Amino acid sequence: MNSNLDPTQEDFLYHFGFGNKALDVQKVFGDTKFVCTGGSHTRMKQYAEEFAKECHVTCTDNISKSDRFVLYKSGKVVWVNHGMGNPSLSIMLNEILKLMHYAKAEDVKFVRLGTSGGVGVEPGTVVITKNAMNAELNEKYVQWIAGEKVERDTYLDEGFRDELIAMAKEKNIPAESGYTMCADEFYEGQMRLDGFLCEYKADDKFKFLNKLHEKGVRNIEMESTCFSSMTYRAGCKAAVVCVTLLNRMKGDQIKLNASQLKEFEERPFRLLTAYMKKQLGY
Amino acid sequence: MNSNLDPTQEDFLYHFGFGNKALDVQKVFGDTKFVCTGGSHTRMKQYAEEFAKECHVTCTDNISKSDRFVLYKSGKVVWVNHGMGNPSLSIMLNEILKLMHYAKAEDVKFVRLGTSGGVGVEPGTVVITKNAMNAELNEKYVQWIAGEKVERDTYLDEGFRDELIAMAKEKNIPAESGYTMCADEFYEGQMRLDGFLCEYKADDKFKFLNKLHEKGVRNIEMESTCFSSMTYRAGCKAAVVCVTLLNRMKGDQIKLNASQLKEFEERPFRLLTAYMKKQLGY
Repeated sequence: MNSNLDPTQEDFLYHFGFGNKALDVQKVFGDTKFVCTGGSHTRMKQYAEEFAKECHVTCTDNISKSDRFVLYKSGKVVWVNHGMGNPSLSIMLNEILKLMHYAKAEDVKFVRLGTSGGVGVEPGTVVITKNAMNAELNEKYVQWIAGEKVERDTYLDEGFRDELIAMAKEKNIPAESGYTMCADEFYEGQMRLDGFLCEYKADDKFKFLNKLHEKGVRNIEMESTCFSSMTYRAGCKAAVVCVTLLNRMKGDQIKLNASQLKEFEERPFRLLTAYMKKQLGY
Repeated sequence: MNSNLDPTQEDFLYHFGFGNKALDVQKVFGDTKFVCTGGSHTRMKQYAEEFAKECHVTCTDNISKSDRFVLYKSGKVVWVNHGMGNPSLSIMLNEILKLMHYAKAEDVKFVRLGTSGGVGVEPGTVVITKNAMNAELNEKYVQWIAGEKVERDTYLDEGFRDELIAMAKEKNIPAESGYTMCADEFYEGQMRLDGFLCEYKADDKFKFLNKLHEKGVRNIEMESTCFSSMTYRAGCKAAVVCVTLLNRMKGDQIKLNASQLKEFEERPFRLLTAYMKKQLGY
């Protein structure tokens, strides 16, 4: 924790567009048990509303006053988007953790529900992340502070993961557990051949993907290292649950029709909803 | 250029939600002379519409079919948002560069118009970036490809910058030229004291900010290294024009009222509009 933070003082959460004194944060957020996050703002809105309907709880309007992130709450579950990439996610996480702190919320679990590129798994597989690896293939999140490299451990709670794996089985959602590689780019950083620039060959790409597969990596996305290290430092249990939209061993373009895409994208949400409904007794 | 790209083949620009064959890209985008980008989607929409009004040209509706980015065109100017951080920007740049390539657009200039934290300059100052530095304080953009570190030069065109500096003078917009530090985080990576976690002291922060100032850094943001290296590799002239919302030497919180914020945020846009209007003969 940051000893500079003083709950009696105004703290303006710039990227949510409101401060800790603008609303009764303890009343609105004090009972939060889950923070669910994903890249897309429209998906988060939709999930917040669908979860409320499914569990017969009420859903707030968008509480965020900024256009950077959306923020919904349905029952004891907060839904907030994080944009794309670790830097964007890192901004959101700092501000949502401060919000939970000011709200005195306790035992809050964090879940990232997202999309990803599969490594040797069928499109539509939900990968429940064992741990996140950075692009150097270390289980670390790299920060640069005062011009110095700082490496933070990535970690995701084993018990929470096992419960999610069991729930996927119960609900017949195709799921697998494996490492997740977190890249800082969608194109060159993931060795796609279809970026604007490409200085490597198809052979180099497959050599790298095979190396990842041998190390136990089952999918690639762009937020898991920051997510799993920052929630760990904050003392919160966390999970990363991403569906794969393609198998990178077979191509780089996402070629799903709208209904396939919708069905695949909903899988992490369906899994989480079943889990949270049971946990929260809704 | 990427020799894998074949204009006769379908290329689905996933984060814009359409492919190069879905619309007549040459007809819609072939005459583009400027691509203007900034973090916020609502600001880009507003700028596209205001520019159209100011220059008596028509403005399209949002051409993007995805909720990841918005994409407008008014006259010969494209407006597209990039979200927050290099990774998000890198996705957008790859796809907009591919789009410009398929449209056969020529001599396209790229401008990032954004907000930033000032280093020893008054809030409201427009910093016209001399060059972008990463968090290691090198004029490089770092990529990780195939598990290896690849460093790319950052570069911004001098002539373009000088013309923008001259236009700021002409329009009485407070501007300064200096280096821009590009961080991967808003809180710890910029040594803010008000993040959820903070393991350094105020003294460390000021020591670092003073070091930056001595090196000629005048502002800190989160996208300039990828922007300035990727446009350089693509052979496009580019500029980074960011207003400062606070002086980090004096605090970490952004404490502007709504009208100040609006007036400051509009300054890069007003500067660019005056410049583009003249260049395009509108």
